Amino acid sequence: MPAVPKHRTPIINAAVRLFRRQGFAGTGLNDIVDASGAPKGSLYHYFPEGKASIAVAAVEEAGLRVAETMAKLAREHRSAADLMRAHGRLYAGWMRKSGFRDGCPITTVLLELAPRNRAVSEAGRKAYGARLAILREKLAADGFSPARAERLSVLCVSALQGALIQSRVERSGAAIETAADELAAMLETAPRG
Amino acid sequence: MPAVPKHRTPIINAAVRLFRRQGFAGTGLNDIVDASGAPKGSLYHYFPEGKASIAVAAVEEAGLRVAETMAKLAREHRSAADLMRAHGRLYAGWMRKSGFRDGCPITTVLLELAPRNRAVSEAGRKAYGARLAILREKLAADGFSPARAERLSVLCVSALQGALIQSRVERSGAAIETAADELAAMLETAPRG
Repeated sequence: MPAVPKHRTPIINAAVRLFRRQGFAGTGLNDIVDASGAPKGSLYHYFPEGKASIAVAAVEEAGLRVAETMAKLAREHRSAADLMRAHGRLYAGWMRKSGFRDGCPITTVLLELAPRNRAVSEAGRKAYGARLAILREKLAADGFSPARAERLSVLCVSALQGALIQSRVERSGAAIETAADELAAMLETAPRG
Repeated sequence: MPAVPKHRTPIINAAVRLFRRQGFAGTGLNDIVDASGAPKGSLYHYFPEGKASIAVAAVEEAGLRVAETMAKLAREHRSAADLMRAHGRLYAGWMRKSGFRDGCPITTVLLELAPRNRAVSEAGRKAYGARLAILREKLAADGFSPARAERLSVLCVSALQGALIQSRVERSGAAIETAADELAAMLETAPRG
């Protein structure tokens, strides 16, 4: 069966879904093909270098999705603090809806493959870069200096990502909302500069 | 070859080391046996239920180690802020020393197996509980109310854990030190109560 372009996206989406739930090593090529509904030939057509190249595409795709979500929240909310609160509520809601099986779509893959796999690490760096840039801009608009905004953006991204893991283990969205809300409150009272 | 008790610890230590570097699914029983130096029979003797029960023991052992490290830092440092700074420097140093291959010893396993595997999730919850309790106590000693100390402890644990992932992807300890230092600075100026 000849590969058709329309199958690339379903393959990547299936990979994102499976990697976030069961990790890279725990997901077989057949699982991805089955979940995507694409013919097996299309997988080899689009990803001739195999599963690691699917991981790169999955990290890129998931990174874009997270950045889009954050950019939307940044437009909708006045301050970095309100953005954090909204992001926390959104993530906690998604986690609850998935029975706490989802989480950050790229964390597991990154932990399994970075820093060993350079292409996956590079895709991960870009995904982080996009999130950090959105937060940095918002923090600068809040009155923090560019240097301070850059540093605080690292803390914001880390706090949410770490809380997603705790939330998954505890089968509760509380950790995500708590981390986001406490960080938001401190950002509001932190001395500017 | 008969199994001897002395082999249990090397098996668990090898599992912690391998799981943190390459994940649970990416680690075979033979890898664990080879790395531990234990005879294969001892692995089946101590862990008759297989690899998942080794994961439980590895999460328990790694959780104890992290709690011990934190308890030591809590004794050595005056405030939760100083504890966070010291923890950040320590983690960043460990990451650099391992060529950024290490990281939180339990995160990858938890993401791969929780919440599906109840025993692993439960071991993860206990590991989190120990860290949170140490921070909670330190934050309460800093003058935060018990309820606030509990909430802030979630943020502290999340921030460091999330930063470890970013650090691994970026092959740099900067994210860990930045997240820890910025959180410490905000804890120092945050209104008590």
